[in-house]
Amino acid sequence: MSEFTSLDFQMMSRAIELAKGGIYTTPPNPNVGCVITRDGEIVGEGFHFRAGEPHAEVHALRMAGNQAEGATAYVTLEPCSHYGRTPPCAEGLINAKVAKVICAMQDPNPQVAGRGIQMLREAGIEVQVGLLEQDANALNPAFIKRMKTGMPYVQLKMAASLDGQTALANGQSQWITSPQARQDVQKYRAQSGAILSTSKTVIDDNASLNVRWADLPKSVQASYLEQGLRQPVRVILDRQNQLTPELKLFHTGGDKIIVSEQGNLTPKINHQQQIDLRETLADLANSHNINHVWVEAGATLASSLIQAELVDELILYLAPKIMGSDGRGLLGALGLDSMADVIELDIKDVRQIGKDIRIVASLLKKEM
Amino acid sequence: MSEFTSLDFQMMSRAIELAKGGIYTTPPNPNVGCVITRDGEIVGEGFHFRAGEPHAEVHALRMAGNQAEGATAYVTLEPCSHYGRTPPCAEGLINAKVAKVICAMQDPNPQVAGRGIQMLREAGIEVQVGLLEQDANALNPAFIKRMKTGMPYVQLKMAASLDGQTALANGQSQWITSPQARQDVQKYRAQSGAILSTSKTVIDDNASLNVRWADLPKSVQASYLEQGLRQPVRVILDRQNQLTPELKLFHTGGDKIIVSEQGNLTPKINHQQQIDLRETLADLANSHNINHVWVEAGATLASSLIQAELVDELILYLAPKIMGSDGRGLLGALGLDSMADVIELDIKDVRQIGKDIRIVASLLKKEM
Repeated sequence: MSEFTSLDFQMMSRAIELAKGGIYTTPPNPNVGCVITRDGEIVGEGFHFRAGEPHAEVHALRMAGNQAEGATAYVTLEPCSHYGRTPPCAEGLINAKVAKVICAMQDPNPQVAGRGIQMLREAGIEVQVGLLEQDANALNPAFIKRMKTGMPYVQLKMAASLDGQTALANGQSQWITSPQARQDVQKYRAQSGAILSTSKTVIDDNASLNVRWADLPKSVQASYLEQGLRQPVRVILDRQNQLTPELKLFHTGGDKIIVSEQGNLTPKINHQQQIDLRETLADLANSHNINHVWVEAGATLASSLIQAELVDELILYLAPKIMGSDGRGLLGALGLDSMADVIELDIKDVRQIGKDIRIVASLLKKEM
Repeated sequence: MSEFTSLDFQMMSRAIELAKGGIYTTPPNPNVGCVITRDGEIVGEGFHFRAGEPHAEVHALRMAGNQAEGATAYVTLEPCSHYGRTPPCAEGLINAKVAKVICAMQDPNPQVAGRGIQMLREAGIEVQVGLLEQDANALNPAFIKRMKTGMPYVQLKMAASLDGQTALANGQSQWITSPQARQDVQKYRAQSGAILSTSKTVIDDNASLNVRWADLPKSVQASYLEQGLRQPVRVILDRQNQLTPELKLFHTGGDKIIVSEQGNLTPKINHQQQIDLRETLADLANSHNINHVWVEAGATLASSLIQAELVDELILYLAPKIMGSDGRGLLGALGLDSMADVIELDIKDVRQIGKDIRIVASLLKKEM
């Protein structure tokens, strides 16, 4: 095990903070930050801002100029070793003659992990790996999951009253949650690679399911300019070909993927004659480079995704209301016969958002 | 308006902290703390520990001894003016020749409010009122409610999965919540004056509904000795005379009030041929001096109490589980037709208790 100094921890923390500057714009690329120091002083720093634009290391090296020679570079992710839309960052660090590179983590793609590090070491640069690795992981859960498994990271958004109802028996449900909760949803949408829903939700609510800059929280607007707004792909399951062109969805900018026989993604159909959700998600990851899917839909899709164990994280908004058990439940029937079969979650965060409560919980995989 | 010094704030804060020392033992009396200072130094302090034992002022005056002469007394509640189980504290302060008394709040009972203050002023003592009044109110919400309205403060405890289910369709519900949540329930029980439930809950679970010292959180045990355990009165609604003597409830110590024709509290029956809950609660407040009722029961009693607007506060434990909408709901049908009729709450506290979430919310009264 390498030993890290307290200066190392400070600099990597700074690199991790920098990386967060790209959370709305880097998809499908990861968030990466970089700090370059010489004699304990920062001489360059940067982060990856947008896919197709320079990587974090490039910004930091440009800022450092010839002070990079003999310097130490802190990078939150192993520098890339391949020629993509930009030249490999490992090469940039070598050309700048840095003396040492500290990476928080290896590349999560097992096919390429370690190549950037190897390239640096072969050029005589000292490399250490693993500083604040957990924090670096937390920057890119979705990117890492897709790289490791070929499946996207799925967040399921739901909203209900304290007693778990989403609507009255007659279907009324307007404004269950507060404006602040709806702003918070906009923030999640803005961070996602795709927003997944169903034709039923799109038609019932004439929902556009897009990111509306004016509805983002002020704190987000301050660092995410309207001109640079990235619109996640909207993916609508439309088994029955019910979507029609006058719907608001089709009159807002941004890519749409309509999963239907007549749409632009032909679904695999399972033996229940329904769209195979696992295959659809795998398609989004592999053919459309989507790391991160944000689901907003009704009880039916939510239950199907949960039962198929395709949900990584539940984001549940609970409004301070009681509606009574004759309303509409959060989920469909799951047909469980034993408490041992109940779906278990792990609470990651609970907080008040306006008048509402937001619960973030990860779904635990059943042991087989 | 009187002006208070920063020393005054410090001393009253100290008195409020002291008052909390009695939260498990003072019912049906209020929690009160007292600090006596001379030349800015504390010379005496105390709190009311148990009904029937000396009041806060008595402890503080004993500690101060003859240093009380010319001193300032900070009391979280107006000193009493009547001869009860102890002589009036106002008289004690007069006899000790304190120069000044600062009270956080008046006596909440409109029939006696101001008499203690008047007694002090008539004896030539300077009196100021209203320092940290909100904090002093928060020490005794139940006592204050009973004094002002003749009704007890009602806390309704419920536990469910994240999707608002309390049991599977077949009734299975064992260990929805974690041991830590059950310890937390013990703490609430221990603070209450009465625990209200139904014969159905008592019979189905063979529930004793008592405070078990061994099950209290360690933090409570540290300051609340087993020998001094106060057992809240258990109040069981038994409209159908179904309770039988072998039930565990009857083999645990502490008073029980059985609300039935054959029990020790004969209920008023309403025109739905059910026990009139409002009358029963008023009886508990007026004939049994119960300030604070902690309700643990099923969906039926919970819904009835909520619909009758008798609940002040909901304490909802949500376990990190999903059970599906075919389970048993948190509440019965409320028959609401419009979102405008939905019962509104105000979230007062949200936190994790072990693996679970605890939500404390006050029920807002409908505007008529």
